[in-house]
Amino acid sequence: MYAENPRGFFITFEGLDGSGKSTQLRKLAERLEADNLPITVTRQPGGTRTGDRIRALLLDSRTENLAPKTELGLMFSDRAQAIAEVIEPALAGGRVVLCDRFTDSTEAYQGGGRELGSELVLRLHAAICGELQPDLTILLLPDFERSLARARRRNQRTASESADENRFEREAEPFYRRVWNAYRQIAAREPLRVVAIEGDAGIEEVHRRIVDVVRERLADHDTRSPRSSHA
Amino acid sequence: MYAENPRGFFITFEGLDGSGKSTQLRKLAERLEADNLPITVTRQPGGTRTGDRIRALLLDSRTENLAPKTELGLMFSDRAQAIAEVIEPALAGGRVVLCDRFTDSTEAYQGGGRELGSELVLRLHAAICGELQPDLTILLLPDFERSLARARRRNQRTASESADENRFEREAEPFYRRVWNAYRQIAAREPLRVVAIEGDAGIEEVHRRIVDVVRERLADHDTRSPRSSHA
Repeated sequence: MYAENPRGFFITFEGLDGSGKSTQLRKLAERLEADNLPITVTRQPGGTRTGDRIRALLLDSRTENLAPKTELGLMFSDRAQAIAEVIEPALAGGRVVLCDRFTDSTEAYQGGGRELGSELVLRLHAAICGELQPDLTILLLPDFERSLARARRRNQRTASESADENRFEREAEPFYRRVWNAYRQIAAREPLRVVAIEGDAGIEEVHRRIVDVVRERLADHDTRSPRSSHA
Repeated sequence: MYAENPRGFFITFEGLDGSGKSTQLRKLAERLEADNLPITVTRQPGGTRTGDRIRALLLDSRTENLAPKTELGLMFSDRAQAIAEVIEPALAGGRVVLCDRFTDSTEAYQGGGRELGSELVLRLHAAICGELQPDLTILLLPDFERSLARARRRNQRTASESADENRFEREAEPFYRRVWNAYRQIAAREPLRVVAIEGDAGIEEVHRRIVDVVRERLADHDTRSPRSSHA
């Protein structure tokens, strides 16, 4: 099918830490695999050997004095490597790519949270990522207070095991409020690409909604660029 | 003097590996220190703790599959940190900053050598570095063949000691020819900022020329923003 179907489908998952996006991504991956779709699962930052080293630099508590634009540059360096090494080859091979965080995260966290602004983030996206955009973005927006509390509980629980991965989690509530607002602005700006799932409907109900949306979009994508088979 | 003299002077050294720029930077630093000027010496990539980790990632032979845009992004991430942590505070304090490589290197190596083009590099410079430009750039352009031979000898000699720092040095001659040409184009485009010193006049003669240029430019800078004292 690769030769006949030159372009796959690119799905990103977005949301605050503690929004449940990684759980939902995993459940969708299992569902699509059961449907015999060729899938590639990755995450940002990380997902490549170089990306893992960049991720360590980004999330490491010891690098507390990271300048906001350094953080921004590292996010896009990681993304450039993931695109070249993982995402573009998978899409060129007709695969469905599921990516945990992409440029929307950078716009929400560095643009909104760190107050660098959306415009700068989108300029870097254009320079580094060119035309590449997700075909579909699942944005999980459960209740803000519960989401924050969940992220903090998880952080306390795992602090002893992974003390280095808590640089972002230690940010104060106003930071997360800015991230949250930036996500809502992205969803309002790009309603076709971004499907926002608000509230706490429960893991299984949210999963069902995501599966419905993904199947609908994949069917639409297949109509425009037909696949002979998903196997 | 800091309060009276809000802006220092930013000098960058550029050239191929083996051009003698690091030697000349050191000799100029000694000269300016002897003149009792407040100087800050740094280099790119590196020069900060975060920058040293980025430098290791960039120069490490094990990261051979680094995508060109990843390399580009990492260069500017390092630069963002150096600007925030070292260069801007030093300039704000009225110091003369001597920096071994800056954006011209990225334009020459990634823009020219890796063929990403000048335009992309300059877009990233504008996004990450804003208005910051060197007040003076010393570009050393000794004879191309001798420069390349010197870089290779040095690489062989130090291969056992620093095997990880030779990723760039292993590039083939056409790569260095493109870097060389890009440097010449930068010099032609910005003749006021970039002072190109061509040929192999010898270390002491080149040093004398650099000191003459720097003293002239510093005197001109002091006339525009007078210093009460250099001590």
